[in-house]
Amino acid sequence: MQRGKYNAITDVPGVKVGHVTLYEESGPERACTGVTALLPHGGNLFEEKVPAASFVLNGFGKSVGLIQVEELGVIESPIMLTNTFSVGAVLEGTLQHMLMENTAIGDSTSSLNVVVGECNDSYLNSMRELKVRANHAVEAIRNAEGGPLEQGAVGAGKGMICFGRKGGIGSSSRTISDEGKSSLTVGVLTLTNFGISEECRINEWLAKNSKQSLTVENDLTTSEEMEHEKPDGSIMIIVATDAPLNDRQLKRLAKRASIGLARTGSTVHNGSGDIIIAFSNAYTISHRSEEVTNSYTILRDDTPIMNKLFQAVIEATEEAVYQSMIHAQTTIGRKERVVERWPFIE
Amino acid sequence: MQRGKYNAITDVPGVKVGHVTLYEESGPERACTGVTALLPHGGNLFEEKVPAASFVLNGFGKSVGLIQVEELGVIESPIMLTNTFSVGAVLEGTLQHMLMENTAIGDSTSSLNVVVGECNDSYLNSMRELKVRANHAVEAIRNAEGGPLEQGAVGAGKGMICFGRKGGIGSSSRTISDEGKSSLTVGVLTLTNFGISEECRINEWLAKNSKQSLTVENDLTTSEEMEHEKPDGSIMIIVATDAPLNDRQLKRLAKRASIGLARTGSTVHNGSGDIIIAFSNAYTISHRSEEVTNSYTILRDDTPIMNKLFQAVIEATEEAVYQSMIHAQTTIGRKERVVERWPFIE
Amino acid sequence: MQRGKYNAITDVPGVKVGHVTLYEESGPERACTGVTALLPHGGNLFEEKVPAASFVLNGFGKSVGLIQVEELGVIESPIMLTNTFSVGAVLEGTLQHMLMENTAIGDSTSSLNVVVGECNDSYLNSMRELKVRANHAVEAIRNAEGGPLEQGAVGAGKGMICFGRKGGIGSSSRTISDEGKSSLTVGVLTLTNFGISEECRINEWLAKNSKQSLTVENDLTTSEEMEHEKPDGSIMIIVATDAPLNDRQLKRLAKRASIGLARTGSTVHNGSGDIIIAFSNAYTISHRSEEVTNSYTILRDDTPIMNKLFQAVIEATEEAVYQSMIHAQTTIGRKERVVERWPFIE
Amino acid sequence: MQRGKYNAITDVPGVKVGHVTLYEESGPERACTGVTALLPHGGNLFEEKVPAASFVLNGFGKSVGLIQVEELGVIESPIMLTNTFSVGAVLEGTLQHMLMENTAIGDSTSSLNVVVGECNDSYLNSMRELKVRANHAVEAIRNAEGGPLEQGAVGAGKGMICFGRKGGIGSSSRTISDEGKSSLTVGVLTLTNFGISEECRINEWLAKNSKQSLTVENDLTTSEEMEHEKPDGSIMIIVATDAPLNDRQLKRLAKRASIGLARTGSTVHNGSGDIIIAFSNAYTISHRSEEVTNSYTILRDDTPIMNKLFQAVIEATEEAVYQSMIHAQTTIGRKERVVERWPFIE
Repeated sequence: MQRGKYNAITDVPGVKVGHVTLYEESGPERACTGVTALLPHGGNLFEEKVPAASFVLNGFGKSVGLIQVEELGVIESPIMLTNTFSVGAVLEGTLQHMLMENTAIGDSTSSLNVVVGECNDSYLNSMRELKVRANHAVEAIRNAEGGPLEQGAVGAGKGMICFGRKGGIGSSSRTISDEGKSSLTVGVLTLTNFGISEECRINEWLAKNSKQSLTVENDLTTSEEMEHEKPDGSIMIIVATDAPLNDRQLKRLAKRASIGLARTGSTVHNGSGDIIIAFSNAYTISHRSEEVTNSYTILRDDTPIMNKLFQAVIEATEEAVYQSMIHAQTTIGRKERVVERWPFIE
Repeated sequence: MQRGKYNAITDVPGVKVGHVTLYEESGPERACTGVTALLPHGGNLFEEKVPAASFVLNGFGKSVGLIQVEELGVIESPIMLTNTFSVGAVLEGTLQHMLMENTAIGDSTSSLNVVVGECNDSYLNSMRELKVRANHAVEAIRNAEGGPLEQGAVGAGKGMICFGRKGGIGSSSRTISDEGKSSLTVGVLTLTNFGISEECRINEWLAKNSKQSLTVENDLTTSEEMEHEKPDGSIMIIVATDAPLNDRQLKRLAKRASIGLARTGSTVHNGSGDIIIAFSNAYTISHRSEEVTNSYTILRDDTPIMNKLFQAVIEATEEAVYQSMIHAQTTIGRKERVVERWPFIE
Repeated sequence: MQRGKYNAITDVPGVKVGHVTLYEESGPERACTGVTALLPHGGNLFEEKVPAASFVLNGFGKSVGLIQVEELGVIESPIMLTNTFSVGAVLEGTLQHMLMENTAIGDSTSSLNVVVGECNDSYLNSMRELKVRANHAVEAIRNAEGGPLEQGAVGAGKGMICFGRKGGIGSSSRTISDEGKSSLTVGVLTLTNFGISEECRINEWLAKNSKQSLTVENDLTTSEEMEHEKPDGSIMIIVATDAPLNDRQLKRLAKRASIGLARTGSTVHNGSGDIIIAFSNAYTISHRSEEVTNSYTILRDDTPIMNKLFQAVIEATEEAVYQSMIHAQTTIGRKERVVERWPFIE
Repeated sequence: MQRGKYNAITDVPGVKVGHVTLYEESGPERACTGVTALLPHGGNLFEEKVPAASFVLNGFGKSVGLIQVEELGVIESPIMLTNTFSVGAVLEGTLQHMLMENTAIGDSTSSLNVVVGECNDSYLNSMRELKVRANHAVEAIRNAEGGPLEQGAVGAGKGMICFGRKGGIGSSSRTISDEGKSSLTVGVLTLTNFGISEECRINEWLAKNSKQSLTVENDLTTSEEMEHEKPDGSIMIIVATDAPLNDRQLKRLAKRASIGLARTGSTVHNGSGDIIIAFSNAYTISHRSEEVTNSYTILRDDTPIMNKLFQAVIEATEEAVYQSMIHAQTTIGRKERVVERWPFIE
């Protein structure tokens, strides 16, 4: 399938992503972490909610906001990513941002449901120090923009480890031409922090998809320190599309992201929080309305486009994981621990 | 069925509850809120986790931590209650408390899953001011004790409204004598913030269960301000037992709490987050072990005790809602709004 | 709230119900059972599917078809009710009926998802004899009609026992006038087979809702045979509406039926299969289409009508349970077991 | 990882599988179908139930029995596989078999929950003819035996199509040596009926896992008839293990089967019913007991064995799909349609 212009989730029109990276270069305990904010569209997210769903492949994770997404089928805030122990601060910062933008929330209208996902970056980041504060979340949201997307060891991805090497933020996209008419786009953004090097299938993927960049196969050993000290990781996957789908259909897309993840070699370890959030910005559901009804036009389940959307999610998820490794640079974190870039031949 | 000694969740041996109440007596925008902490047992909750489950009756709610409870079937932190916008602060405060107690968390062992539930107290509390801070959560945990339980407009219940009158924290318990052997206890704690006065069935319940206290029926009108300004409410229900049950069986208990709630007259409004968390402290699951297996002795599903446990959950949930009203006092909150105590004849 | 013309699920325009009753008057092992068919609308159900959802309150049940309802959000067959051991025969009979009506199913188009619910009538019915055959399902479908609905010990309800007395098929409806515009209707049909007499709250309900018919309170003992030989029962609840809702919203309605059930006194015993199916026939989803999209107009979640629909489901479910008892007559089944009518004063 | 002796689900001690194949060699409409029965252990399955769980990856399927498996966490019958329209007959036949073996079921004890899975074989099999009858299910159960397992176009797999070529029954197993102690086994049985040839990754798998058998790559076109007339397929996956796990943990294993499926190239089409059932026969839960409690010894979630079990499920599922193709022979079905064996070089 065709990639979008930026091969990133920002190929879905309206989607914006912003990072804040916290990195201290010295000290035994140091920050090596950050926040990434994803805005489903450029307008007021509370006033114009997007249809959404989630799927929990393995629930060893601390994401917040998904209960209400399941009940109401909408997301009404930026989707935030950070480290496990910063969920509280990021939740509060995102709330503050939204309260500033929407003076009625929690006063004369209902409350707000914020969505935050996380992975555990405690091998490189002194997570117990709680260095991420509420203002970092606000800043990440303000940094959000469309177009080319910074990936790898950036934002929430700064301290993450994928298949025993440096991971972090990765993204990819696929377009589906709707029989002559305007094309549809699926974009995926991943926060990768899972797996062991022996499982990784990036070599096979590179062999198929690239002529230049291959991997040194015999350099895939895991350091003893990492083997003993690194906790089981996780992955957060965000699927965006401009295909007109409802929350039930978006749950189906979310499930397909696990198929793409499977192809990277993940075995979804016990201690992994593997959580997928999917939304469409093809239409919005307004917070207020004079009407008692809403009208939607959504894709039929049995249209061949649906299977193409599934395939797009699978391909983009698989590639987004690899892109997080391709973009990531060797990173030094707490206790002078070094996590190297995957041994690509470049 | 028999009530326990305190007719409270603290009748389940080991369960402790602590409150912090934030209340400002003047100012147009003021704090009228708090935090309530429930400790499933008196030991180290991370090292000795309790089997647990949850049930979402209506998911217009922002509870955190339930994804991991579903996956692993355990709770490893205090269960915290607060207002909707303070979930972030309480999450962080609870984390801080647990990090202090457990120096390995997020360093040499895995991360921590904190459970926080909430209701929207924005009619009385200036929720947008974010007056609850992390230290209030720590304080609520430190305040936790067994024995008689302070209820009504206290802790997280300070600003809550139940059936159009003052609600908040309510609790009740039931005991099941296990055929001569030691008895089992079910305790329920509710944070009540739902319903309209016309729906409430407390009169019928009082008529059956009490000789003294009845309600003035003709004083149940709803103020116009409340009708127009109060958001749909919510209820958080925590079910505790010392019956030996696993997570699957605890989910069954959690579902029965919705039966008890139904009997109070609730119609589970669209905007209500009605969420139930159930745990047993009959046994614990240790965080670390030299063994590869754990051994459990749990109740058979088909023992008649199971149906009695269901009934106990139902009765105690229904009564816990009413106890929140019986204990609550008329409260003045932001914008000089007054929420009166239910018109009991006393 | 107002009842519909027939106070039955058939008040929802287009809904039809048909019964086949199998009853043998003598012999130690005898048929005392049947089949009930509910048609969501009068047209071709496969070609014009209805949006639908289900909720499992307690899963000690053997309903079929609900997995696909969850995935696709539609029902495409009659909804069938029968005894536990006749699910296979009724599934096959319903399939045969649909194959006759639709020559393409399983040939040049996809297969068919049939929905069957059941309760265990083995106290009165010799369920092991498998007396219900495929043709009885076909006959029940052909018997289906709108208008006044036969209730009580009829169809699938012939051998069912509710609160220790004769139950079976019960139905009720509520209408919601949509502010001057045309009214909306909620109808509920129950197959009642649960509970013990001490739990039943029909007396309170009759006292509130009726002037004439009350219960002899001191005649509610349970026979020893029933206490020892009757298995835990179940309830199937079907919620129909002509309110325009999608599958997510219909799941919310399904959950509210459990609130109505709770009010009858049910404690949802361990061995009870308490399963709710909800559908709307306000619009249909066509099996085939030239288009790649479908368009819908559905109610907003936050319209006050939604809470009224919830209330309508609750009230109609509660009453439908009682109507199954009000309509049921004392019935003699296998082993000359007698299940008496609830001791109404008439 | 190591395969078991038979590289089949029958490597899990006690597991037995039996087939009945229905095949008519002529006639425009003909039987090309069957029934496969899997017995979790060799004893009385109703009296000694096995812990079990299921996971629905895509719910376009008509499996029965999974609601009760979810509620009670046990399977108490053979697990049956057949074509979509024969679920009713197989359900009834399995019931008949169990009633013969257990004279109390549906008489003096509770009813029975039968588990049946299905795929749509209507391209080759005249599914509308309902040729499978109840007695075929009984026969398949009676045919069940341990040891080497007949695979490919046999039993329920007779008419199934995998990746556009002949599929059907496939199986594989993996063993995990429990650090010196006795080894644990994971076995997987699949009924494969999904996918299109372009998606299939069997070539890559054969290249890694086999020296002899490879595929003719340029012979993978799909016939026009198949492209237009074959419905979207499905896959049923049964995971068996003798590792001591409870139902919650078995659901985790079931989810990992979808990872193995993903690696075969499946994109989990819209019209595919992809359903996984997992059980352990390491211990059983007795139907009756004098005790009110049961005792279990199960694996800890955090033991490294758990991740090995996940990997075993993934590997065995992937291989089981391929084994269904490796064993299957070119088959002629209704309308003289031919489905060829995958073009292996042999």
